[in-house]
Amino acid sequence: MQNMDVLSGLRVDNNIIKTTSQYEFSFDVVTTNNIFDLNNTAILNVCKGKKLLIVISETIETLYGERIRNYFEGNYKPEMFKIIIINTTEANKNIENVLSVCKAGKEFGLDRTSLMVAIGGGILMDIVGFASSIFKRKLNYIRIPTTLVGHIDAGVGIKTGVNFSGSKNYIGAFHPPVNVINDIDFLKTLPVKEIVCGLSEIIKMGIIVDMELFELVESHYAVLIEGRYQGDILISNRVNNLAIVGMLKQLIINFYENDLERLVDFGHTFSPFIEEYTNYRVKHGIAVAMDMAISTEISYLLNKISKNERNRILNLILNIGVNIYDEKIYNTQLMYKSLINIVLHRGGDLNLVIPTEIGQATFIKSLDEVPCYLLQVVFENLKNYQLSGSVTDENSIGV
Amino acid sequence: MQNMDVLSGLRVDNNIIKTTSQYEFSFDVVTTNNIFDLNNTAILNVCKGKKLLIVISETIETLYGERIRNYFEGNYKPEMFKIIIINTTEANKNIENVLSVCKAGKEFGLDRTSLMVAIGGGILMDIVGFASSIFKRKLNYIRIPTTLVGHIDAGVGIKTGVNFSGSKNYIGAFHPPVNVINDIDFLKTLPVKEIVCGLSEIIKMGIIVDMELFELVESHYAVLIEGRYQGDILISNRVNNLAIVGMLKQLIINFYENDLERLVDFGHTFSPFIEEYTNYRVKHGIAVAMDMAISTEISYLLNKISKNERNRILNLILNIGVNIYDEKIYNTQLMYKSLINIVLHRGGDLNLVIPTEIGQATFIKSLDEVPCYLLQVVFENLKNYQLSGSVTDENSIGV
Repeated sequence: MQNMDVLSGLRVDNNIIKTTSQYEFSFDVVTTNNIFDLNNTAILNVCKGKKLLIVISETIETLYGERIRNYFEGNYKPEMFKIIIINTTEANKNIENVLSVCKAGKEFGLDRTSLMVAIGGGILMDIVGFASSIFKRKLNYIRIPTTLVGHIDAGVGIKTGVNFSGSKNYIGAFHPPVNVINDIDFLKTLPVKEIVCGLSEIIKMGIIVDMELFELVESHYAVLIEGRYQGDILISNRVNNLAIVGMLKQLIINFYENDLERLVDFGHTFSPFIEEYTNYRVKHGIAVAMDMAISTEISYLLNKISKNERNRILNLILNIGVNIYDEKIYNTQLMYKSLINIVLHRGGDLNLVIPTEIGQATFIKSLDEVPCYLLQVVFENLKNYQLSGSVTDENSIGV
Repeated sequence: MQNMDVLSGLRVDNNIIKTTSQYEFSFDVVTTNNIFDLNNTAILNVCKGKKLLIVISETIETLYGERIRNYFEGNYKPEMFKIIIINTTEANKNIENVLSVCKAGKEFGLDRTSLMVAIGGGILMDIVGFASSIFKRKLNYIRIPTTLVGHIDAGVGIKTGVNFSGSKNYIGAFHPPVNVINDIDFLKTLPVKEIVCGLSEIIKMGIIVDMELFELVESHYAVLIEGRYQGDILISNRVNNLAIVGMLKQLIINFYENDLERLVDFGHTFSPFIEEYTNYRVKHGIAVAMDMAISTEISYLLNKISKNERNRILNLILNIGVNIYDEKIYNTQLMYKSLINIVLHRGGDLNLVIPTEIGQATFIKSLDEVPCYLLQVVFENLKNYQLSGSVTDENSIGV
């Protein structure tokens, strides 16, 4: 993030002094290949001459530790960088971990011109982003996401945060990175389930704002999943870049979430319940896909989307290997109750995002429009749809 | 703070997606009297209809607890506000205290539309400001400063933070309040030393940017100190408002401290050493006044300020009761060494602020211009000046 105060004003009335200030931030999402090739300049372009605290997870240490060390040893003086390894389980996504990163930065002697470099998945980026937001009140940092969700979702926004007092992501900061560097090379070591989670968020962007993106995934999901993004690199990068641009177009008008009507909340209304109810056995991306199926069926029952487009959406979700119905989870009463909490969180409105066609979506503002019995019919339809075998591919990873 | 994204842009080049976003915030500094009078609307104007977590210190509880409770009980439903008391010693200015405020907010059920209300001195405002910056990634808060330093300095900026790992204010956030409400009524219970600390920061603003302010304090320091700001309320409010406007004019072009040349750093180059060396027995404001004397004498020795104006500055510092020389503290070698740390903190430059006349100041960019022997002469001059009795008032509060 390069930021500056761009326009400011001061007005002195009788007993009121009014202060207004604007500031600007910017960041780049860069796509590269062979990021740790000694001659690759993607990292150097941002980090050159700056002291670096590089934070990685244990998994990244195992898979890429040597390459990372070689890269920095080859390009940096030893006193100018330090690599630390942190725990990145959900249980370790806490303020203690954030403070341990701050402490490492302090002991290494980072100053205001230094950078933190986060190499890892969403949890790691959240921890390092939060640490750099509070370190000397704000330190620049870069994100090098190593998961698909990181590439197209978690890496792109400006949110950071950790769990607190039993609640997910309860404390944190809005803190944009100076740079996000994506290399799909990382994805070849991902479990298939992680690829599916990322594709789910990509399909989300396709459904709400980008038909081309939806159709790309519709045509190429098999090679993307089975090839772990290495099968057709042009397609892989095209898919990801469309998803990132789609996401940024939505975020850029609402980085600080002052507007609670957000299209990117598609798939994020029923999914918190699904995650919590299964004690996070169902991963976020999978829960988002299940939620998208529910929301699409609601749209269909309310006559807001055509049968053909609803079918294409449900089919694609099934095709990437996600069940659109699960009798152990789909408890109508409990899920309906969870909506009441959502309404509280969204300032009194439901703001459920539903697709109206592929590439277009709208909001259901009030909970009144989604009565409990509607949910009951949704679940029955999804159950029947799943059983009816409208699926073109029998492969399912389950939940 | 009302904030919004005002202008945003996205540019997609080959492998780079560039994101730019501007962000605006505004806040008001309001002056009122009898803030806790049941009919006073200063607080209600900002807080009405919003759930409030009111955070106060033990001192405030003792001095104003009943009035605060009466005010909120008279104007609010009991389920809409909660008052908590926190420790606000320097030793308690830590992340644990920040998290305890977050926890109280969570248990009370604050949502994104709620407010934290900080009633107290600088440490309390720093803790509550930091807590609200990380609470659900950002919660609005208001500051009701109860010290003079709080009114004209700590309450005005957007910095929050706490001590960490042995270093002062090492972690924190830039987080503007939505409102600052000042009532000089609070100042009548302040120890004289606290008034002097505040006046020191006010004199600072006068010296660097506002001759009228300097001369107001030059003429009225006695009544301001002895009357604890209650002697001539018009003068008191005029002095404070000039100081606040002066401060905001400096801050507003540099809220995020991207520019390291800051006039408001006047008095803040030697003072950190003075505070640390005396283990914080010398309060911040007193150390700032001592630093201003040193910096002014440097300016005088470098022929940058006239003898008359230098004398007026030294006299005013002596007049408010601060020693401009202290043989136990003014160790030339150690103080010179401390400048090297300052240079590191300020990105390689010294950026020492020195007055060129009353209401004007400039920077000494490089440490080379302040050799160790110059400091030796400065201390001898200040010692002689203090002994010579150019002082119009023999009252000294010592350090």
